[in-house]
Amino acid sequence: MSLANLRTHYTADVRPDKVENGQKVTLAGWVHEVRDLGGICFVVLRDREGKAQVTLVKKKIDKDLFDAARRLVRESVISVTGSVKFEEKAPNGYELLPDEINVLNVSGSPLPMDTTGKVEAELDTRLDSRFIDLRRAETTAVFKIRHESLRAIREYFVKYNFIETATPKVVATATEGGTALFPITYFDREAFLNQSPQLFKQILMSGGFDRVFEIGPIFRAEEHDTRRHLNEATSIDVEVSFADHFDVMELLENLVAYVYTRVIENCKSSLEVLGVDLKVPKTPFLKLTYDEVIEIINSRCEEKMHWGDDLGTLGEHTVGDHVYETTGESHYFIIDWPTEIKPFYAMPYEDRPEFSKSFDMMHRTMELSSGAQRIHIPSLLKNRIESQGLNPDGFEFYLKAFEFGMPPHAGWGMGCERFVMTMLGTENIRDTVLFPRDRRRLSP
Amino acid sequence: MSLANLRTHYTADVRPDKVENGQKVTLAGWVHEVRDLGGICFVVLRDREGKAQVTLVKKKIDKDLFDAARRLVRESVISVTGSVKFEEKAPNGYELLPDEINVLNVSGSPLPMDTTGKVEAELDTRLDSRFIDLRRAETTAVFKIRHESLRAIREYFVKYNFIETATPKVVATATEGGTALFPITYFDREAFLNQSPQLFKQILMSGGFDRVFEIGPIFRAEEHDTRRHLNEATSIDVEVSFADHFDVMELLENLVAYVYTRVIENCKSSLEVLGVDLKVPKTPFLKLTYDEVIEIINSRCEEKMHWGDDLGTLGEHTVGDHVYETTGESHYFIIDWPTEIKPFYAMPYEDRPEFSKSFDMMHRTMELSSGAQRIHIPSLLKNRIESQGLNPDGFEFYLKAFEFGMPPHAGWGMGCERFVMTMLGTENIRDTVLFPRDRRRLSP
Repeated sequence: MSLANLRTHYTADVRPDKVENGQKVTLAGWVHEVRDLGGICFVVLRDREGKAQVTLVKKKIDKDLFDAARRLVRESVISVTGSVKFEEKAPNGYELLPDEINVLNVSGSPLPMDTTGKVEAELDTRLDSRFIDLRRAETTAVFKIRHESLRAIREYFVKYNFIETATPKVVATATEGGTALFPITYFDREAFLNQSPQLFKQILMSGGFDRVFEIGPIFRAEEHDTRRHLNEATSIDVEVSFADHFDVMELLENLVAYVYTRVIENCKSSLEVLGVDLKVPKTPFLKLTYDEVIEIINSRCEEKMHWGDDLGTLGEHTVGDHVYETTGESHYFIIDWPTEIKPFYAMPYEDRPEFSKSFDMMHRTMELSSGAQRIHIPSLLKNRIESQGLNPDGFEFYLKAFEFGMPPHAGWGMGCERFVMTMLGTENIRDTVLFPRDRRRLSP
Repeated sequence: MSLANLRTHYTADVRPDKVENGQKVTLAGWVHEVRDLGGICFVVLRDREGKAQVTLVKKKIDKDLFDAARRLVRESVISVTGSVKFEEKAPNGYELLPDEINVLNVSGSPLPMDTTGKVEAELDTRLDSRFIDLRRAETTAVFKIRHESLRAIREYFVKYNFIETATPKVVATATEGGTALFPITYFDREAFLNQSPQLFKQILMSGGFDRVFEIGPIFRAEEHDTRRHLNEATSIDVEVSFADHFDVMELLENLVAYVYTRVIENCKSSLEVLGVDLKVPKTPFLKLTYDEVIEIINSRCEEKMHWGDDLGTLGEHTVGDHVYETTGESHYFIIDWPTEIKPFYAMPYEDRPEFSKSFDMMHRTMELSSGAQRIHIPSLLKNRIESQGLNPDGFEFYLKAFEFGMPPHAGWGMGCERFVMTMLGTENIRDTVLFPRDRRRLSP
């Protein structure tokens, strides 16, 4: 009755410590390769965890079985029952001597792209045929590591008494002024896809939730079409009551170190497949002030940066290289940004309000996270909304939460894809998303 | 420098096994109540984990401190440093004798709604002022349990080698014919909000991911405005290769039992606040066939159900009551549904194709989950799409994944909110969502 008997083991679980020599097992997966040498035929079966060699010697086995094996079409789905023979010379330390090969679904041919790694496909080809691309060990490895990273992030937050939340993606108001939004027709009204859970997680601080995190999709209608932008991405968002920006920077750097540690421990074979030699970043991360960053850039670049400018790509690289050369580390913070170039909810310093209690966490080549202590005083918040040219009326549902007991609080948001990308040294952010959405791509 | 010194303990962590009598602690939270009896004043401080009584005896303390305490405005945010005095008669087993009360943010008044539980507010009032409603212990308890449920669900799947995935919410094609979709303007094109990760998780089976789960938002533009429908909800989705519907039903019933067990263990005080006496459902759940369900309904109801009809609300209640009366259990499966009333991807039985290998998991009063073994044969799938009046051209990106080695697979989707709702006996599904989205509500 159950299909569970189509497989007793993953290929990687057939090991001398788990299986006896000669034991009958059933493997299920894809026909990775068929090598027909006349008197002997090798079928390489591939599943999520690895590959196994199925060996058929013409003289020793049933003719029909041998012929069936020779005729197997690559990438067809099969289930093979046979005896395990541990054999040091075989690719995975064993071969399977089959009693039965069951073809569950025949693949068409030619394939839309190569799966053996012999031909390197362009990213667009790979994304067009993502279902085949995902069968490559390198692609699977990225998503196993992404999975483990998010698992470890949740584990870390749970340990520190955070509540995971889910806030709406369909909203009536933009979070911030700057970013473009995707409009939705919500019954007879106009609504938008949310670009950040920012306003909601702050409301939850007023709601007494104390420490929250959210991991979910965000949507940005930016026209950017670069190797590090997505229009739909996964954001890791955090908000903490009775905390300032230094508290949440500490939380963040320790989180990064924690996740790297877990990935090194739990994703050994995936890191190996990718050839990544991961090192846990040293904490605490270096903190450079915005003013120090200007000095570094202006001492190294022809094009000068002025106070009040945002960091450009060249600036990010310059400072990142400087930090790496002087400390040997890739992660660092830029703190004390000008209030005017940070979102309205960033808290200005009391004694020098042109600077804000805000930070970016950087990796050598790009920004990973932005955060700040937030404004919790309603009158100041309203002023800041106005002075950024926004209309406070659109923020009524948000401002109301500040008028009846909002605690001081701080938080940050970090892009999941950039985090994975910088961890693995991935060239393009699209490689860290199963089905990326960008300016041009809406399918698959 | 750090705001962390605004609090050393949560109110619930001041206990004889953790804190010494007379020890100095700092609590932070909201002014829940001020009782000024002339010579003595009690301030009840509330945080996420509970309440603490701050006791001020006029004769014994500084006059300014006493006066400040008397004048505290309800729901203002304060931080109080003082000595712990364990005292059996005090509400939480201790009182705090304050040295210092620090007002961090003064609340306006009158409050938009009551927080003491003395006045029962309507749901709409509570949702309009959700930031205040969330301060009620009953509301917080629901979201702590929701958090623990999702944590336990992830723990369970990780144990069984599942990979957590994130698939796009912005899509070009509807998943199924029936449900209405919210249209988006995606740059210069029309797109939709995804109503289910169904097609993507199936593509991932072709991609060799073997076992995946996804917990994320789904969007349904249904006009329904009932106490058990939402237009934005959280869906728990699962897909398993080399498995049939019986395999994934077993996975599902064991998951339900696992989560109930974890909630009972880890959410004692939240269950107490809600007055819920949770029992772990017995596994395996009863399986009724669709034909048996018709018999039960027709033997009990005046309005007859015919073969090919879907279950109405009355039918669901009738069968749910029947199951509860005969077994004492609330959960059960309805299996073997007519192929024509299930989505196109449900696998028909080979020997009686008018029935499908599909199931619903029911709770006494409503459907919680739908699942099936899926069709993995491309020609059959194309036929089924056509016979449901849909155009296969719109599904090209999906059908392609079946033509080059799709394994047999099965899966299900379960609504997170309905799961929590039935666990806690919540009257309205909106009580299980922080900021619900429905036909009328788009804010906060």
